[in-house]
Amino acid sequence: MDGSTGPDRRTVAAMRRALAASVEVHGTTSPNPAVGCVILDRHGEVAGVGATARPGGPHAERVALAAAGPRAAGGTAVVTLEPCNHTGRTPPCVEGLLEAGIARVHAAVADPNPVAAGGLDRLRAAGVDVTLGTLADEVALGPLRGWLHRTRTGRPHVTWKVATTLDGRVAAADGTSRWITGPAARGTVHDLRRRMDAIVAGTGTVLSDDPALTARRPDGTLFDHQPLRVVVGHRDVPPGARLARTDEAGTADVLHLRTRDPGEVLAELSHRTVVDVLLEGGPTLAGAFVAAGLVDRVLVHLAPALLGAGPHAVGDAGVVTIADIVRLHVDEIHRVGDDVVIDARPASGPTGPDVPQ
Amino acid sequence: MDGSTGPDRRTVAAMRRALAASVEVHGTTSPNPAVGCVILDRHGEVAGVGATARPGGPHAERVALAAAGPRAAGGTAVVTLEPCNHTGRTPPCVEGLLEAGIARVHAAVADPNPVAAGGLDRLRAAGVDVTLGTLADEVALGPLRGWLHRTRTGRPHVTWKVATTLDGRVAAADGTSRWITGPAARGTVHDLRRRMDAIVAGTGTVLSDDPALTARRPDGTLFDHQPLRVVVGHRDVPPGARLARTDEAGTADVLHLRTRDPGEVLAELSHRTVVDVLLEGGPTLAGAFVAAGLVDRVLVHLAPALLGAGPHAVGDAGVVTIADIVRLHVDEIHRVGDDVVIDARPASGPTGPDVPQ
Ligand SMILES: NC(=O)c1ccc[n+]([C@@H]2O[C@H](COP(=O)([O-])OP(=O)(O)OC[C@H]3O[C@@H](n4cnc5c(N)ncnc54)[C@H](OP(=O)(O)O)[C@@H]3O)[C@@H](O)[C@H]2O)c1
Ligand SMILES: NC(=O)c1ccc[n+]([C@@H]2O[C@H](COP(=O)([O-])OP(=O)(O)OC[C@H]3O[C@@H](n4cnc5c(N)ncnc54)[C@H](OP(=O)(O)O)[C@@H]3O)[C@@H](O)[C@H]2O)c1
Repeated sequence: MDGSTGPDRRTVAAMRRALAASVEVHGTTSPNPAVGCVILDRHGEVAGVGATARPGGPHAERVALAAAGPRAAGGTAVVTLEPCNHTGRTPPCVEGLLEAGIARVHAAVADPNPVAAGGLDRLRAAGVDVTLGTLADEVALGPLRGWLHRTRTGRPHVTWKVATTLDGRVAAADGTSRWITGPAARGTVHDLRRRMDAIVAGTGTVLSDDPALTARRPDGTLFDHQPLRVVVGHRDVPPGARLARTDEAGTADVLHLRTRDPGEVLAELSHRTVVDVLLEGGPTLAGAFVAAGLVDRVLVHLAPALLGAGPHAVGDAGVVTIADIVRLHVDEIHRVGDDVVIDARPASGPTGPDVPQ
Repeated sequence: MDGSTGPDRRTVAAMRRALAASVEVHGTTSPNPAVGCVILDRHGEVAGVGATARPGGPHAERVALAAAGPRAAGGTAVVTLEPCNHTGRTPPCVEGLLEAGIARVHAAVADPNPVAAGGLDRLRAAGVDVTLGTLADEVALGPLRGWLHRTRTGRPHVTWKVATTLDGRVAAADGTSRWITGPAARGTVHDLRRRMDAIVAGTGTVLSDDPALTARRPDGTLFDHQPLRVVVGHRDVPPGARLARTDEAGTADVLHLRTRDPGEVLAELSHRTVVDVLLEGGPTLAGAFVAAGLVDRVLVHLAPALLGAGPHAVGDAGVVTIADIVRLHVDEIHRVGDDVVIDARPASGPTGPDVPQ
């Protein structure tokens, strides 16, 4: 925040709208960040809303400026990420804002990318009124989360999602696991999958559950965007597995990484410009990622139920005594249908938290 | 509710105060119910507040009437439980209300005890204006919960409390378990213990954790009321165990039940007029109670943390396949310090829910 007072209500409302616009495109922009932008005219009315187009297409600011047309002159740009100052496949956004005669820019979070950063300085130097920080925490936990993480750390952002009972079981003693959580919670998983660049599962889960690892609507049809499907482990995927079928139109590729090293998995995915990874199981692979400090977000779908037997949510994570327990920080708890969703992240560790606590 | 409109705000506020008064004495009245009563004078002002005294002492209505004195005449009694209509160690409360000239009685829940019931009918017949149902759900989940359950089913009410990680572990691989949850959540456990008539643990927990099973204040001093301490299992409690020490003043008796049958445990406790039982561990005993359908309330203290190894929250509960999963109904979720408390009860089963869902 530049001034000593917070942003006005109109700016906050515009940022919320920019954030919502970015949510819409989340999952279609990688490796570019999913940004949202709202242009307010000189009277403070919304003149244009935009979000990042698919790679090669215009950035959010350009889309919003195009929608606003001449009304942008003397107006305000409210944008979730600091406008870029570098020429990639598209010219720098700061140029576009200056050419359109924008007088004020409110950004939520700074661009941690040294190549593209400096946009706000450049705008300020050109006489534009600039603030940074409006809804920063909310935006940092939104669609930009994975991209900010990758830009800062150089590796993809890993969300580990697990559906478990109150006693930490992810399947019954006989291996049956459909379904622990209810339809509402399962629907949110598909909504999450369509935002991701890759879904990762171990060979154990593939062999026991035969999952499709696709992002589906409640009616079973496929979403347009499908994440890369990644299997980790030495064993083969059986030819009859749903993952092995290539006859279903619209499904994504399957990548089989014959390793047991989470670091190697992320290096390979990073190489393929993957930003957002959804780790969906099972306990052995989850334990390995936790032990390696490579889980950045923990999304527990907790069914209010007990099993008393069956595989656990997390297998060996290298913790032997209570002093070494892996503590998490809870960002949010909410109920989805009959289930409870706990959204958390490591309280500390090699990667550290990405947003203020 | 007698009328078609709900209770007025003053009645609801008085019921809330009556409920609060009953919370104060919860744990000191068994086998009598912990009831709260507020007397409003003819102008609707609070004239007296009372709660059940220790066994042999006056009931809540008598305490509140005594506090109100002559101001009770023409006034209203707001009481969490239907006033009793039977002569036990004390004369019936309905007599006291009629003698005091009470004109209106609002009760939250009916007395399910056939011997004492009929109080409202009796009052109505005497020309008193009577309603039933104000804050009924809230009151039924409060201090009366165990007593209502015992009166209906003939057996004590069992609250199973467990402190677990998100992956359902109650101790680390090496057996260390202090502490999984934080000080705030642990404080609420001591507050719960002082409301209970008995705390139950298995020999496994006694041997591994050497717990005192006392109700203590944050500074370590003992609360006035201490629940009976019950150990279940065939093995001996070692002479040096904290439970075996008799030198600490103010602690309750220890009862060792050399059985593995939860039904036998409850029968023995019922025989000792125990109403509220707190089952505190460990997984083997908890699994046995769950399997027997003898857990009435599940209180999970969930630490946002992962262990990946160690004993589970629930051991064998007789569930082999997902179709037999024990579903719970969540009454409440709240955060206590860094921890999450989930307050639930069986969604169905032999005992069924005690309050409307
Ligand atoms: N409720 C849920 O959310 C959920 C989600 C997923 C799975 N599950 C349940 O989890 C169970 C499967 O558990 P799982 O642990 O076998 O699944 P998994 O973690 O998906 O697969 C484990 C396998 O992955 C390979 N692997 C990869 N990295 C490894 C490493 N670092 N260390 C050791 N092995 C590694 C090994 O197989 P190779 O020998 O091939 O290398 C290992 O056997 C099933 O019952 C399934 O229903 C539940
Ligand atoms: N975090 C928490 O909330 C919490 C709470 C309690 C315990 N714990 C942890 O739990 C672990 C102890 O687990 P545990 O399962 O041994 O404890 P437990 O359930 O307290 O005790 C089990 C023992 O009780 C006896 N028993 C009673 N009823 C039984 C039945 N129906 N079936 C079989 N045995 C029965 C058996 O011993 P006999 O041979 O003597 O009959 C059995 O070995 C410790 O690591 C402790 O730290 C954690």
